[in-house]
Amino acid sequence: MTSNTHAAAKAADLNRLMGARSVAIVGASDNKASIGGQPVTFLTEFGYEGKVYPINPRLKEIRGVACYASIMDLPEAPDVAIVAVNSKLVAGVIEQCGKKGIPFAIILSSGFKEIGAEGLRLELELKEVVAQSGVRVVGPNCLGIINLTNRMHAGFGSGFQYNDITRGPVAMITQSGGFGLTMVTAIERAGMGFNYIVSIGNSLDLNTLDFLEYYLERPEVKVVTTFIEGIADGERLTRIGQRALEVGKPILVWKVGNTSTGLKAAASHTASLAASYDLYKTAFRAGGFIEIADANDVVDIARVFRMGKLPAGNRLAMVTGSGGAGVLVADRADATGITMPDLEPDTLSKLKAILPGFASAANPVDISGQTSKDGTSVSNNALRLVLADPNIDMVIIRSKQSTNTQAQMQEYMDIVRATPKPVMIAFGPDRDDEAKGVFDQNEIPWHVTPPRAARAAAALNEFATRRRKYLAANKNEARPDLGQSAKQELKLPAGEATLSEYAAKAVLKAYGIPVVGEANLSLEDILALKEAPFPFPLAVKINSADIPHKTEAGGVKLGIASLEELKAAAQTVTKNALAYKPGAKLEGVLVQQMASGLEVIVGGLNDACFGPTVLFGLGGIFAEVLKDVTYRFAPFGIEAAREMVQEIKGAVVMNGYRGKEALDVEGLAQVLSRVSWLLHDHRERIAEMDINPLFMTSKTITAADALITLKP
Amino acid sequence: MTSNTHAAAKAADLNRLMGARSVAIVGASDNKASIGGQPVTFLTEFGYEGKVYPINPRLKEIRGVACYASIMDLPEAPDVAIVAVNSKLVAGVIEQCGKKGIPFAIILSSGFKEIGAEGLRLELELKEVVAQSGVRVVGPNCLGIINLTNRMHAGFGSGFQYNDITRGPVAMITQSGGFGLTMVTAIERAGMGFNYIVSIGNSLDLNTLDFLEYYLERPEVKVVTTFIEGIADGERLTRIGQRALEVGKPILVWKVGNTSTGLKAAASHTASLAASYDLYKTAFRAGGFIEIADANDVVDIARVFRMGKLPAGNRLAMVTGSGGAGVLVADRADATGITMPDLEPDTLSKLKAILPGFASAANPVDISGQTSKDGTSVSNNALRLVLADPNIDMVIIRSKQSTNTQAQMQEYMDIVRATPKPVMIAFGPDRDDEAKGVFDQNEIPWHVTPPRAARAAAALNEFATRRRKYLAANKNEARPDLGQSAKQELKLPAGEATLSEYAAKAVLKAYGIPVVGEANLSLEDILALKEAPFPFPLAVKINSADIPHKTEAGGVKLGIASLEELKAAAQTVTKNALAYKPGAKLEGVLVQQMASGLEVIVGGLNDACFGPTVLFGLGGIFAEVLKDVTYRFAPFGIEAAREMVQEIKGAVVMNGYRGKEALDVEGLAQVLSRVSWLLHDHRERIAEMDINPLFMTSKTITAADALITLKP
Repeated sequence: MTSNTHAAAKAADLNRLMGARSVAIVGASDNKASIGGQPVTFLTEFGYEGKVYPINPRLKEIRGVACYASIMDLPEAPDVAIVAVNSKLVAGVIEQCGKKGIPFAIILSSGFKEIGAEGLRLELELKEVVAQSGVRVVGPNCLGIINLTNRMHAGFGSGFQYNDITRGPVAMITQSGGFGLTMVTAIERAGMGFNYIVSIGNSLDLNTLDFLEYYLERPEVKVVTTFIEGIADGERLTRIGQRALEVGKPILVWKVGNTSTGLKAAASHTASLAASYDLYKTAFRAGGFIEIADANDVVDIARVFRMGKLPAGNRLAMVTGSGGAGVLVADRADATGITMPDLEPDTLSKLKAILPGFASAANPVDISGQTSKDGTSVSNNALRLVLADPNIDMVIIRSKQSTNTQAQMQEYMDIVRATPKPVMIAFGPDRDDEAKGVFDQNEIPWHVTPPRAARAAAALNEFATRRRKYLAANKNEARPDLGQSAKQELKLPAGEATLSEYAAKAVLKAYGIPVVGEANLSLEDILALKEAPFPFPLAVKINSADIPHKTEAGGVKLGIASLEELKAAAQTVTKNALAYKPGAKLEGVLVQQMASGLEVIVGGLNDACFGPTVLFGLGGIFAEVLKDVTYRFAPFGIEAAREMVQEIKGAVVMNGYRGKEALDVEGLAQVLSRVSWLLHDHRERIAEMDINPLFMTSKTITAADALITLKP
Repeated sequence: MTSNTHAAAKAADLNRLMGARSVAIVGASDNKASIGGQPVTFLTEFGYEGKVYPINPRLKEIRGVACYASIMDLPEAPDVAIVAVNSKLVAGVIEQCGKKGIPFAIILSSGFKEIGAEGLRLELELKEVVAQSGVRVVGPNCLGIINLTNRMHAGFGSGFQYNDITRGPVAMITQSGGFGLTMVTAIERAGMGFNYIVSIGNSLDLNTLDFLEYYLERPEVKVVTTFIEGIADGERLTRIGQRALEVGKPILVWKVGNTSTGLKAAASHTASLAASYDLYKTAFRAGGFIEIADANDVVDIARVFRMGKLPAGNRLAMVTGSGGAGVLVADRADATGITMPDLEPDTLSKLKAILPGFASAANPVDISGQTSKDGTSVSNNALRLVLADPNIDMVIIRSKQSTNTQAQMQEYMDIVRATPKPVMIAFGPDRDDEAKGVFDQNEIPWHVTPPRAARAAAALNEFATRRRKYLAANKNEARPDLGQSAKQELKLPAGEATLSEYAAKAVLKAYGIPVVGEANLSLEDILALKEAPFPFPLAVKINSADIPHKTEAGGVKLGIASLEELKAAAQTVTKNALAYKPGAKLEGVLVQQMASGLEVIVGGLNDACFGPTVLFGLGGIFAEVLKDVTYRFAPFGIEAAREMVQEIKGAVVMNGYRGKEALDVEGLAQVLSRVSWLLHDHRERIAEMDINPLFMTSKTITAADALITLKP
């Protein structure tokens, strides 16, 4: 994975790569099976209409196509050079491409960082050459590119050898060439087609994100799919997800390398430093990404998105001839945030009028196994009624009766086209290949079974829900009122450092985050006190940037109930701190009010890939063992913070659990938003932070302890 | 769902149904599309060799087959009567079947409990008639039975109309006829076949469990699959799961109606009172059930079970030509309890000798995309080496090289047959239909993609792990040493009742469960005390069967620190209790030691479907909000109890969390096993019980409160 040394490729740039009018093949061979031989065959025999220039100094021609001795000998600068030479020779070829003015190269050659130290050295050299040459590069160690719209199979491998790969609305970019092409085959065998397929290889220059961006803007692309192990720029990934929402196209993402075993395998496969899967999921959730884990998911989801209709809400109706299918779809709906509401009384009475006596008109509407009534399709009529119901946003229908005859099928398609609501049809036990073919030709979505239709409905709902929220909510980004209007200046020490608790609290205060009542006093001042600075009980803590883990150091005393205890505690924590870390610079002794309430954790991290990120969870083992935490990228406003609070399971406890008073969820949301702006404003300095514990009561939010570490 | 009024059908019984030599069709019609017409067509035109007797008083024959006026007119008693008459006439037909001596009827007619009150009345009447007649019945409201081994399509509907349903090793029983047959079509289209298909309908007599039992004993059945909404006898389901482990055949179960929306739909579809999904999952986990949620799961899993080899452990190796596929399989493995261990140094060096320089010999073994070496298949050679490694129990291979030539394919199949370890092959981007066909003919498992092979490996591992454990562990059922050898006699009040806390604790003590130090004293005795019966601090609680929720009643005072406080508290809780429930029978005031430690909950329930069941979880919101609880059916021994403790996520806290001392997990396991025997021994009386909280420290387990309710 390359870091972003090049500016992001502009979408327009890639048109010349993907729509190349001429392609050179450096290392072209007359051996059809070789890596340099395959693209010659594909580009000359599959209907590609651009010019093809094989380059091989030892050949005059390859099956009638003239060969050239070198790039410099070409009669023009082609749009793309395919490079299939020994890895040691690649840099020289790219230099020549630069001189000749060739804008793009696809480097099929392997033998770079994927093989270890020697290859990595070659790859770093190549990277410099690429930067100097001005040539934009796909690969190395990739299978190449297929553009099915102009029949350009610019690559090699068994996935490239078919001249009849199904054309369709899906564009793919894959980090695993072999696996990606396996998916292409599985997907097209299940009845969905492609327009672009890119194997990105080592991403020395152009990377997954460049192609995701490009695909989203292409009108012929309705659905984007990608197989990723890791990407280098999580913030750009997040922005691309938002763009997907804007343009209404989903990015179906198959993310692997997420578990310990998987990461081990990923590490041996690429040098990518994958960010934690939690942060990927946070990015996916913030944009138009839908996670998939099967080729069928792509087929099923592409079928509904191709239709171009998004549901206005999450309310699903089902019209079925089989109760079992209804129960199953209801199960799936429930698990994916879809509701199956009651129909309007008016709809019910109209349904009852057309259904057999013992059919069930409630949602899911079971029209029973009866055949057509008086030549009209009961299921088409029921579908019309259900679609007219204002409580319903989308429908899954499973009925033989809508595909029984040509006329009923035509009627069904007319209904589906006329309504703004998405309609999905799931086939039953009938092997109705003709209907499936007709539906595909007309871009009417169909699914093999009801659960697969339910999976598609869930994807539609997930995407549409996020899209509505995203389009409605630029206000979500508003900076909370801090009593000031903008970024707060902070006095932070230079270099890599840990702040003392008191200094960390000062940072929190600057961003309007309520902290516990406290005074930072010298030991002498405490010993001279005539009365305590706050009402008892109190806490006493050593305050030192050199001792971030105060409890371990014996630097904390809680529940101090008298002035004598206070003075004794101040002496003890000072003595303990110096014993724990001789020479530690002590910045005083904190005398704090004891806070109480529900303990929560608010944390911040500055991820190398995803940037400033806020973490939130309940304290103690809830966060650490049960992993009941949630993440959000900074910065965000109060609306997003409110959502974040409700994302953890433990939120129930805050909302008034078992008759207890609700806790100050609004105050907590304020803290989360403020922390996000703090992390955003000072991302150049703040590496990590913890507010732990943060105490919540029904009226108050209080940071009792804080830790902030700084980057150099 | 019928209750178990009939004795369970013996496996042998159903042979005469499934292998019927003669079938009558009551309500036979010459209209090929009608319910009574379809089975006539299927039984006479699909190759069924038994006798067929259409019964219809208005017809002489149906397309050359002689019709009879009534059952009584038949020349013999056929093995099976298919009944397709109006629901009101069904009972009369069954009576006649009984008189004629027909052992089985398949009632296709609908119009019974599925249509509401009127139908339910008919169904109850029919049930009596069936019991008196001695006829064993499938249905009513079912689609019927298909036996593909003798071509008997004894039913109706579009799922029955195909004469060429693929034959294979799978037997299905479905509670949803329509959906079940949809699955049959999807499964056979994906390349797997059936021998038996049963639509069970309303299960008035024969039910899902009868057929599951029958299938497990049939040698031609290798895999059983079932679609269920609910069953009536959970304990029998559990026993069937154990039998599946014994015979080594998995039951692939698709359970629906599990979520609130799903349950609503399930309720409207059948009158089944589905037990909670948690208990179903407990039963599945205890036996040879594998939960599925897609037709593909059946196909993929059946392919590996048909091979008849179970892995000896959970250690998987992958041999792949694509790193991406390796990462993906590693992810899946991790999520399903499979490990991908390192290979032996000896295996690694042998692999390195045969692999190209830059291939990765570590597991997953990436053999790279190179073609065969000197005519031998590198992937077959690598597979042999990996199979010989003692660290490996099963292998997934993904390589074109094992299917490149006829010779390589034969070599591959020979390797797979010769090894006792399961081997799965996943296809790549090649559309290798010929190889797939050859593999199917030879019952060599193959999968479309690596993740589907991984799913199959997970199912194999899940089943094999449970089987090993089950076969090794009858000792698990041992009753813990209670200081006595058997069931304890308890003094329990007659009738439905709640025990007072003190009485409930007496029950716990009888089973050797440690309870907090306490005395049940009269208010007068407490007021006369000269010293406290236990060291302070103490708890005081009202003790009354009439007040199970003591805290709500103001009947609990904690942290009592002196004799005066004790006396005052005893007066207060007595006064509060009488104010809360005037006339409540007070059985004294409990004076208890204050226990402390980690709070856990141990509960018991006596489920109508699954019988006595123990629940365990951490206390408070861990159990109630985060649902971090686990269940196990009673009774069970100490080994099973130890497993149960470790099943919750919060177990980490008990095992020595963050350097703290481990808690008394062994004592907790003792309590769980003892509770299970208590529930088992007294299942006729104990309805529910709670030990909440049960306190754990590093050395002690103490029941601080207990509630037991009794059945009449």
